[in-house]
Amino acid sequence: MALEKKLTGTLYGVGVGPGDPELITLKAVRLIRSAKVIAYPKLTGGGPSLARSIAAEHISTDKIEISIETPMLPEKFPDPNVYDRCSDVISGHLENGQDVAVLCEGDPFFYGSFIYIFERLAPKYITKVIAGVSSLGACAGAAGIPLVSGNQRFEVIPAPIGESLLEKRLMAAESVAVIKIGRHLEKVKRILFRLDLLDKAIFIERATMKNQKIKRVSDPTLKKSAYFSMILICKYNQGFQ
Amino acid sequence: MALEKKLTGTLYGVGVGPGDPELITLKAVRLIRSAKVIAYPKLTGGGPSLARSIAAEHISTDKIEISIETPMLPEKFPDPNVYDRCSDVISGHLENGQDVAVLCEGDPFFYGSFIYIFERLAPKYITKVIAGVSSLGACAGAAGIPLVSGNQRFEVIPAPIGESLLEKRLMAAESVAVIKIGRHLEKVKRILFRLDLLDKAIFIERATMKNQKIKRVSDPTLKKSAYFSMILICKYNQGFQ
Repeated sequence: MALEKKLTGTLYGVGVGPGDPELITLKAVRLIRSAKVIAYPKLTGGGPSLARSIAAEHISTDKIEISIETPMLPEKFPDPNVYDRCSDVISGHLENGQDVAVLCEGDPFFYGSFIYIFERLAPKYITKVIAGVSSLGACAGAAGIPLVSGNQRFEVIPAPIGESLLEKRLMAAESVAVIKIGRHLEKVKRILFRLDLLDKAIFIERATMKNQKIKRVSDPTLKKSAYFSMILICKYNQGFQ
Repeated sequence: MALEKKLTGTLYGVGVGPGDPELITLKAVRLIRSAKVIAYPKLTGGGPSLARSIAAEHISTDKIEISIETPMLPEKFPDPNVYDRCSDVISGHLENGQDVAVLCEGDPFFYGSFIYIFERLAPKYITKVIAGVSSLGACAGAAGIPLVSGNQRFEVIPAPIGESLLEKRLMAAESVAVIKIGRHLEKVKRILFRLDLLDKAIFIERATMKNQKIKRVSDPTLKKSAYFSMILICKYNQGFQ
């Protein structure tokens, strides 16, 4: 089995960071340049792949590219058939001795779709995960809000969970990022109002990208939200520049 | 006031990543190369600065270097006098029109000591925070444990908090990183045993560095822990390579 592993290529999960092409690591750049095969997620009908566009200047024209097309609605669990099929294609290249770099927005193991590829292929192939800058630090840095310090606790809560659970967790938390806001903006606003946290909550969309948006949640002009957005509530850290 | 700001240098909080010098971003490298003044934290009597050593190959000999020496015990809150004094020194360079890059291990706003400089200087000077790869993604990647996916919640809890609160939070959590383990290893082990989570808990020390250590918490040879270490417990994600 060890011998079999050695003859195949290596699977890399490569974090490319939150959006600014300069927030990619030296290691990610080196692996993207050296891998023969580059794979990346892409929403069907959703325009170019964000992960690919972040890394575009390091992808030479002689690469084999694999687009992992996910036709799912973003809030539903991913279609396992998509990841089965893509893993088969990636597996074919690995069996041929080619390294495959799977690009991931942010960090591969932090809500990354690479996890679904990893679950399928890591038991069979040498797999390495290259950590990337996650949206958490990017949003906090962009908004000028220190996320968490000293012995404070920090929690990440996806907005799609039920309203009462979300309220309970927000009440008990010290520093929180509520992620995947999308169509849950009004629900989150209601909860923050009830907990008297509206004035401490900052909304950030597309952090570090050209069309970055940062607003107080109490701002009446904040009426809609993209899926890739978050609300930061740092109960004890002030500072919104 | 706007004019005054323009005549001074810019303060940069620069995340240099978790330890592997290749996990620094292109943006961090560019800013370290262009800033005239480089500051970094250093524990008094604790050997060279880790943040500086990560970025060492990008620091040319013509820089002015500021060592932010913290004589504190790592678990106590930092000495405000140290940060007052260092902020004054940094302020002097900014007033002279020099840019100052403050290097931070991991991400500046995620338990970073840069937060103490930021609080003092951001109200007075143009300040930019460059997100870095945090220890969370680095530890998860090194251990081969997907941190969190789908609509799971994720929580970061410092080990120094009280035993009963820590137990309560661990019970309610889905995916958790218990950080700053240090001398709290036995306490965390006791709690994990009571919650029947010992077999799911992975200990990681110095992730991505040469002397990285990864063990199951149930491993009887795990008897002591450095301060910069964490235990990951992902209740629903398996996978420890």
